[in-house]
Amino acid sequence: MTRYDAATLRTTLSALFREAGAQQEVAETTARILVEGDLLGHHTHGVKLADGYLKDLAAGNASGDPGVLEIHENTPVAALFDGHYLLGPYLVQRALDHCREAAATFGLGMVSLKRSHHIACLAAYLQPLVEANLVPLILSSDPAVASVAPFGGLDRVYTPNPLAAGIPGREQPLLIDVSMSTITNGTVGKTHAAGGRLAHPAILSGHGKVSDDPADYFAEPGGSILPLGELAFGHKGFALGLMVEALTSALAGFGRKDGPTTWGASVLVMVIDPARFGGTDAFLDETDHLARRCREARPRDAEHPVRLPGQSGLARRRDYLADGIPLPEDVVAAMRQAVARSSLAGTTAFG
Amino acid sequence: MTRYDAATLRTTLSALFREAGAQQEVAETTARILVEGDLLGHHTHGVKLADGYLKDLAAGNASGDPGVLEIHENTPVAALFDGHYLLGPYLVQRALDHCREAAATFGLGMVSLKRSHHIACLAAYLQPLVEANLVPLILSSDPAVASVAPFGGLDRVYTPNPLAAGIPGREQPLLIDVSMSTITNGTVGKTHAAGGRLAHPAILSGHGKVSDDPADYFAEPGGSILPLGELAFGHKGFALGLMVEALTSALAGFGRKDGPTTWGASVLVMVIDPARFGGTDAFLDETDHLARRCREARPRDAEHPVRLPGQSGLARRRDYLADGIPLPEDVVAAMRQAVARSSLAGTTAFG
Repeated sequence: MTRYDAATLRTTLSALFREAGAQQEVAETTARILVEGDLLGHHTHGVKLADGYLKDLAAGNASGDPGVLEIHENTPVAALFDGHYLLGPYLVQRALDHCREAAATFGLGMVSLKRSHHIACLAAYLQPLVEANLVPLILSSDPAVASVAPFGGLDRVYTPNPLAAGIPGREQPLLIDVSMSTITNGTVGKTHAAGGRLAHPAILSGHGKVSDDPADYFAEPGGSILPLGELAFGHKGFALGLMVEALTSALAGFGRKDGPTTWGASVLVMVIDPARFGGTDAFLDETDHLARRCREARPRDAEHPVRLPGQSGLARRRDYLADGIPLPEDVVAAMRQAVARSSLAGTTAFG
Repeated sequence: MTRYDAATLRTTLSALFREAGAQQEVAETTARILVEGDLLGHHTHGVKLADGYLKDLAAGNASGDPGVLEIHENTPVAALFDGHYLLGPYLVQRALDHCREAAATFGLGMVSLKRSHHIACLAAYLQPLVEANLVPLILSSDPAVASVAPFGGLDRVYTPNPLAAGIPGREQPLLIDVSMSTITNGTVGKTHAAGGRLAHPAILSGHGKVSDDPADYFAEPGGSILPLGELAFGHKGFALGLMVEALTSALAGFGRKDGPTTWGASVLVMVIDPARFGGTDAFLDETDHLARRCREARPRDAEHPVRLPGQSGLARRRDYLADGIPLPEDVVAAMRQAVARSSLAGTTAFG
């Protein structure tokens, strides 16, 4: 498998976004976050997304102009961002920067972001903050999409609604990025496109049968993605999914009630500084202790010791930065399409 | 089944806590929150706990003196409470009051609470805040207890780590209170004591077998409670459990590294005011819309329409306030024991 250099990927992507009309800072931030997704191994939420972002820029469904962002700084720690569908990675980064500044004075900061375009891989934003011993939190829902049914129901109402958190640690930070559903929309679509079966039954068919066949999702009547906890404990995943909906779309005041059709996101961004609570050293002592206890637990399968959230991703990242990123074929194909439609055609690793 | 009047229960409990040395405000708040747990139907986390609280007050493992609480108001929105093992319901209520005041000015407030005694039912705190159109969040772990194993491991390292959130709504607020494990310590203990089987396999035996027999938890080598998501998706419940550990014990700077042995809790309390983000009306419009979409979803089982988090609890509460609380036999027994050891013996509904 060909490996691609991260810096070159960033440059190529940034040039593509620039050519599609995005201003420098928007193009660079979006390119950086997409490549960061692949560096951590999240190829469904990395540079593969660029083709869709570029199409939406061309169609006017996404903006690359930072001037459209409206910031309502309602209090020194509470802001509402109206993103007017600026590219999501730029908006989330701006929201994190805003929260970080508030946290420096107040110990925490919160931004509610409405009308963002798609925000890519949530884990991709965390590392710079955890390395500064801060705790970033990002929650997201997409009010233009419905793929998960309420527990006990058959109709799709809401989205997988991921929640990400960065937990500083001396030996290894925890990079947490999990959806409140069993699997993501991306996994359903990708597995269906490949004609495969899911690793676990995570679909509820439109007739109420649990299934590992993504075709049941796309059938008539349509299926849905099971909430985390599945049939036995899915009331918990459902409750957590509703919490994320409320803390994103409801808090921002823009959501499903408004019937948006543009690929986008409602986002809650927060940064907490442990120095203003129990102290940074005590925080790190505790997370190091907890991580050690987890890693030292007897494994259920001797060949698979306990892994901490982010451990594989950070190991991959070190490897990929040194030796290049082994992009899957579907990602390479998406990049080829994007390059082919641009003036860069013939000058890049993707044609 | 005998029904017990909520107000009488509160008075009896409050008198018991007073007699055990708790000051008036501590006794009344603790009594109120315990009864609120039973009103919502959470009988494992309601007045049943009083007997244990009273024993810990008598043994000096819990305090009833509000004077021991140390408040470090590090910024106007970020405070550290050192609870010195004051009864948990009093401390959490104080933390919520503190956050609510901060939120009135700043849109949000956060308290990290260390060395609390046990904090009972998290859902029991939410209603007064959601009725004021505020969003309360409560996260908790108990660093003196380990019952959940890290995903892929066999040794118990952390606790079920519940997360509660109150979501205002005009027709019905959402009262969310879920642990990041499949089931709680209370359910394991209660089912084991009754010699029964769990409703779903939620135990991982010390040999790595999934089981519905709580005896496998108490065997040698000991079992553990499976994280939410079980074997297929348990990496998500594990990640969320670690997030709650970090936001409670690590943020407070006191946790497993300190080896506490007292029944207690590390707690994160937060209050958000939607008025300082996208606006209260828009928040309520969105949550009402979402709730309606969920309730109107075709049910998987025609006899069991979709229920929203808190819906059953609030219906029970109305019923129980009108007609009394049908306390389960084990709860009545716990109350009888507590009353028998007090000067109230012979003067209450419990002897």
